[in-house]
Amino acid sequence: MTTVTILGSGIMSTALAWPLSDNGHEVRLVGTHLDRDIIDTIKKTGVHPNLDLKVPEGVRAYQLEEAEEAFEDAEIAMSGVNSFGVHWAGEQFASLLKPGMMVIAVTKGMEADDDGNLRILPEVLAEEVPQELREQVSWSAITGPAIAGEVAVRHDTCVVFAGRDADVLEKLAATFRTDHYHIWTSMDFIGAEVCAAVKNCYAFGGGFMDGLLDKEGKSEAKYRRYNYGAALFGQATRELGQWMELLGGDPDTSNGLPGVGDMFVTTMGGRNVKAGRFAGAGVPFSEVQNERMKDVTLEGVAAIRVIGGALEKLTERGVVPAEEFPLMRHLYDVVEKDEPLNMPWETFFGGEPQKQKQERV
Amino acid sequence: MTTVTILGSGIMSTALAWPLSDNGHEVRLVGTHLDRDIIDTIKKTGVHPNLDLKVPEGVRAYQLEEAEEAFEDAEIAMSGVNSFGVHWAGEQFASLLKPGMMVIAVTKGMEADDDGNLRILPEVLAEEVPQELREQVSWSAITGPAIAGEVAVRHDTCVVFAGRDADVLEKLAATFRTDHYHIWTSMDFIGAEVCAAVKNCYAFGGGFMDGLLDKEGKSEAKYRRYNYGAALFGQATRELGQWMELLGGDPDTSNGLPGVGDMFVTTMGGRNVKAGRFAGAGVPFSEVQNERMKDVTLEGVAAIRVIGGALEKLTERGVVPAEEFPLMRHLYDVVEKDEPLNMPWETFFGGEPQKQKQERV
Repeated sequence: MTTVTILGSGIMSTALAWPLSDNGHEVRLVGTHLDRDIIDTIKKTGVHPNLDLKVPEGVRAYQLEEAEEAFEDAEIAMSGVNSFGVHWAGEQFASLLKPGMMVIAVTKGMEADDDGNLRILPEVLAEEVPQELREQVSWSAITGPAIAGEVAVRHDTCVVFAGRDADVLEKLAATFRTDHYHIWTSMDFIGAEVCAAVKNCYAFGGGFMDGLLDKEGKSEAKYRRYNYGAALFGQATRELGQWMELLGGDPDTSNGLPGVGDMFVTTMGGRNVKAGRFAGAGVPFSEVQNERMKDVTLEGVAAIRVIGGALEKLTERGVVPAEEFPLMRHLYDVVEKDEPLNMPWETFFGGEPQKQKQERV
Repeated sequence: MTTVTILGSGIMSTALAWPLSDNGHEVRLVGTHLDRDIIDTIKKTGVHPNLDLKVPEGVRAYQLEEAEEAFEDAEIAMSGVNSFGVHWAGEQFASLLKPGMMVIAVTKGMEADDDGNLRILPEVLAEEVPQELREQVSWSAITGPAIAGEVAVRHDTCVVFAGRDADVLEKLAATFRTDHYHIWTSMDFIGAEVCAAVKNCYAFGGGFMDGLLDKEGKSEAKYRRYNYGAALFGQATRELGQWMELLGGDPDTSNGLPGVGDMFVTTMGGRNVKAGRFAGAGVPFSEVQNERMKDVTLEGVAAIRVIGGALEKLTERGVVPAEEFPLMRHLYDVVEKDEPLNMPWETFFGGEPQKQKQERV
């Protein structure tokens, strides 16, 4: 039996309590300062209010002030916060981790510095931990297509545990793996994490299909906009591959579960797609953010701001040619600059040949 | 103005009358012997009954016996039949084509010989035409994600015209291209056509998600099976790449519009996905074919039979290792051998590491 302590009681990290409990492991769920009500509810009723499910027998819930007790003797420490909480989680880990612990993160996103250099979040998380301790624990992450509730109700799910130590990854995988929660391991830590962040950006575009129909008063029309969505999906797949090239990932990662697989599932729905639908319907994005979806956490949108902003800087610096990543650039223009949706088709797939010629004439 | 004559008045070939008419070209639509009612209806009312839309002004409909007149002076000849009609269409072309015509096909599928050697359909089509004439016309095809009705109602669509002659492809693209029908060209004829056929097989699996929920009485449940579908999509993308390697296509093709793009749109619905849903719900496939969906043309299923059957022979001959294409093999077992759906997850993505070890013990 392994003890797994989870910091952050969002739906994704909590859902992992099911495969862990099914394998007979002890799960300790620690809420952040934002999770106070969730932990209270679990303590009182056993139900995670956002998952709307009773957590498995034996899962113990802790408020943040009980964190030290929860991390005592844990072999695995999970960071279950979202991308906005990574620095905070790292600060907590600085005092909670013990040498030998295996850290695994579910957060999806990236950070950029002022020059547009992008970093994966497990690095950001680790940097908050003093160097000596940082090197005495291992750092890994979970990537791939996993809607939290589906994991919790034991619907088949295939994920990739990524990191830099094959033995650690196999140990972690053996701890989490069940007949429904299928796990592959990958040493392409950069590639897997970049996919996790970038696919969130492209999935925002998954809302455009229905949004365009809304705008045209065709919400119930027989003929949808799947061709449009499929073209975006194709261009997004191409760009995922270009991100691998730029940041040092493996194309098998972008063409597998962490890339196209996760992009597929994220495109199927959720808050990010809902925000994209408003954009597709012609609502200026500032209005989506400040009115229509006020107070809603939009990680995909946040990722577009970070990654699209970095892209502009990388292009200014001559690192990335201006004609690459046209879809990401347009998503950035829509989200950050309030530009109307106007898909630059002629720039996709290396450029539509005749169109380019016509425009040159 | 160019004259384009289309043999076969199915929804896809007919939908292309819209971009052609928008560009001022003359479109002549010739029905096959199976299309008699469609042509009659268009002649009488202007409406294509399966598209449920009035065809553009100026499109002229012809019964098969008027084909010679329709092909007179045509610069472009389109094969608009489905995969079951390719030999027949080739036989018609043998007497209808004239030297210098540009042939373009929309059919999606492949053919295999007794040894499992697979061939793309434009080759099958061309072989029915006497060699001298065959070499005096050009052969190209349209691939990529295009639901017919969406093309007809001028929803943005991105496709790839593939063939072996760049000049011909550019001429064809310039004839069809509009502000809504976006066209790239590709000399990867094999890759594009293989994707067109193979993605139809994998899209059949797009029905499993809902089928499994039907089986479990969870058709209306909050938590769906998107993780399952996303995992299949990831493995299918991997296998698309392996098909490119095996048959000589470019990975950019499988990772672009003809591959993942078209697989995305085909997974979103249609008869093929409906058949997959029955299979997901546990209905033996013989019953789906002979009762539930009797008399329904299922091109994806036909493609699974051809390609899955060829795969067995290629494996017997030692051309393809037995551990490759596990998803295609399972689809074949379900469709051809009436086996129950039982996804071999542990064989996906090169094999789930620990699972394989456990099974070896």
